[in-house]
Amino acid sequence: MKKIVVIGGGTGNFAVLKGLKNYDVDLSAIVSMADDGGSTGILRDELGVLPPGDVRQCLVALSDSSRLMRSLMNYRFENGGLGGHSFGNLLLSALEKVTGSFEKAVEEAGKILNIKGKVIPVTTHQVRLKMILSNRKILEGEREIYLSQEIDQGYKSIYLEPYPKANPHALHEIANADMVVVGPGGLHTSLIPNLLVEGLVDALRASQAKKAFVVNLMNRKGQTTGFKVSHYLQEITRFIGDDIFDYILVNNQSPPQTLIDVYAEEGDLVQNDLSEFRVVHASLLGELREQPVKDFIKRSLIRHDPKKLAQELMKIVHHL
Amino acid sequence: MKKIVVIGGGTGNFAVLKGLKNYDVDLSAIVSMADDGGSTGILRDELGVLPPGDVRQCLVALSDSSRLMRSLMNYRFENGGLGGHSFGNLLLSALEKVTGSFEKAVEEAGKILNIKGKVIPVTTHQVRLKMILSNRKILEGEREIYLSQEIDQGYKSIYLEPYPKANPHALHEIANADMVVVGPGGLHTSLIPNLLVEGLVDALRASQAKKAFVVNLMNRKGQTTGFKVSHYLQEITRFIGDDIFDYILVNNQSPPQTLIDVYAEEGDLVQNDLSEFRVVHASLLGELREQPVKDFIKRSLIRHDPKKLAQELMKIVHHL
Repeated sequence: MKKIVVIGGGTGNFAVLKGLKNYDVDLSAIVSMADDGGSTGILRDELGVLPPGDVRQCLVALSDSSRLMRSLMNYRFENGGLGGHSFGNLLLSALEKVTGSFEKAVEEAGKILNIKGKVIPVTTHQVRLKMILSNRKILEGEREIYLSQEIDQGYKSIYLEPYPKANPHALHEIANADMVVVGPGGLHTSLIPNLLVEGLVDALRASQAKKAFVVNLMNRKGQTTGFKVSHYLQEITRFIGDDIFDYILVNNQSPPQTLIDVYAEEGDLVQNDLSEFRVVHASLLGELREQPVKDFIKRSLIRHDPKKLAQELMKIVHHL
Repeated sequence: MKKIVVIGGGTGNFAVLKGLKNYDVDLSAIVSMADDGGSTGILRDELGVLPPGDVRQCLVALSDSSRLMRSLMNYRFENGGLGGHSFGNLLLSALEKVTGSFEKAVEEAGKILNIKGKVIPVTTHQVRLKMILSNRKILEGEREIYLSQEIDQGYKSIYLEPYPKANPHALHEIANADMVVVGPGGLHTSLIPNLLVEGLVDALRASQAKKAFVVNLMNRKGQTTGFKVSHYLQEITRFIGDDIFDYILVNNQSPPQTLIDVYAEEGDLVQNDLSEFRVVHASLLGELREQPVKDFIKRSLIRHDPKKLAQELMKIVHHL
């Protein structure tokens, strides 16, 4: 069975994992630990736990349990002291407290949710993502970076504090993978935070796995405004040191103009400017009839289709 | 397979259920819905859900899942907006929100916890327990009644507001039971609240089941101070209308004097003053080496032993 390792955050990994779990592959999700917004941020601050939000989304994507269990994981309490917390986040945090280990918590939650594959935190250390902009402003935390409108004006550095060692299990998965899929996902808030962990990039470069980069559909205003496919590749390559990608998956399907207009305040469509052989152009857009999920209303309108994405990735896997 | 129905609250039902689940019997726990203290009270107030606490304890008692899952259910968050909530309560409340029904929530939680038997809320209506004391003071809510030190000075009435219909499933279980076990548990806060639900007493009286009353080990100061076995029987009979009990289980084992002293501020030992044939005298005390559980530190020092209790109850069942 081919081993596929998916690297990213919660929302970005979701479509890839949801699509691939229907194939007969050995699937692992390596997940950024930089999230510090919303429910996750409160749990980190108040309970001192590791960030559960992205892990929760990956668990739900890989879950083979009932629709009810998946709804339960994403259910958000609405009132009082619990207001804003998603149940799945509370499950992971309580499991971390009871088992004394976040990794063990993820494993146990995986059993409860009957997941296919594994979810692996990229590091098991408490870290904060920080960014120093070109104008010397310091952005503290993933949330602040996510909300910044100045990143496309340039930044000096982005780093995790304190500089964390990678989770050895994550390195092991990468070393033994047949294919590694990076993206889609927030470039600075979901993808790059994985690469900032000590040892991760070395493992990626050393791995014999074929590497695929799934390029985002939309730019985020103030962050990647006007980015084309080559810019995404360039930016991610800065952190890896070499252009390691054997495949670059790019959507070539246009969303309706009305949707692009809805998005105008959020960002623009990522245009393709690469015509290399390794660029896979395919129709990757999700159907638009679906109700957007509460968690990511705006991001979810134009999004990858799990099925189409998995089909393209499996075409590659079948040739390995 | 003999059908046993256990009626009470969370803590009281716990020992009976935990003991009986190891036998080949069809087990149902009918649970009071009057709890409104602590985590349960906050969830009722803030989320408008039905009280999860007593149900949670019964689910854990009947659970055949791992020790970890049971610890998880009883885990209490310690800080912030979540402080004081037990995870199991949050699970039940989130499931109630997601399924739209408390009964469905209990059923689903039972699946997650792999329980043996069934847990059935005595009513699915939102109710408050109220008590009017002889001095005309009105105690509002189970918590206030639980904490009162004046109940043994006499009370005029105790009732649920609004007067709720029984859960038809509870009535069905009682009608089809081979044995009904009432108690142990807080007399006014766990046992009687079940009998205050419309239809429950009629069902009990009409049922062909043998009825067993498990008498508490300790009196609660200010509530049942100085109560002997006959007083318990008298008080519960007031609400049932007739003395329906075929068996009365009474502990005849003395706890060490040191423990009685520890309890002195809480209450005194229940003395037996009945010598009828139906009174089963047995050694029913739990071992004293166990660490008390956080939830009920004081109540748990002198408590029923699940194994001994179940052995005595099964002797009765074997004669049915």
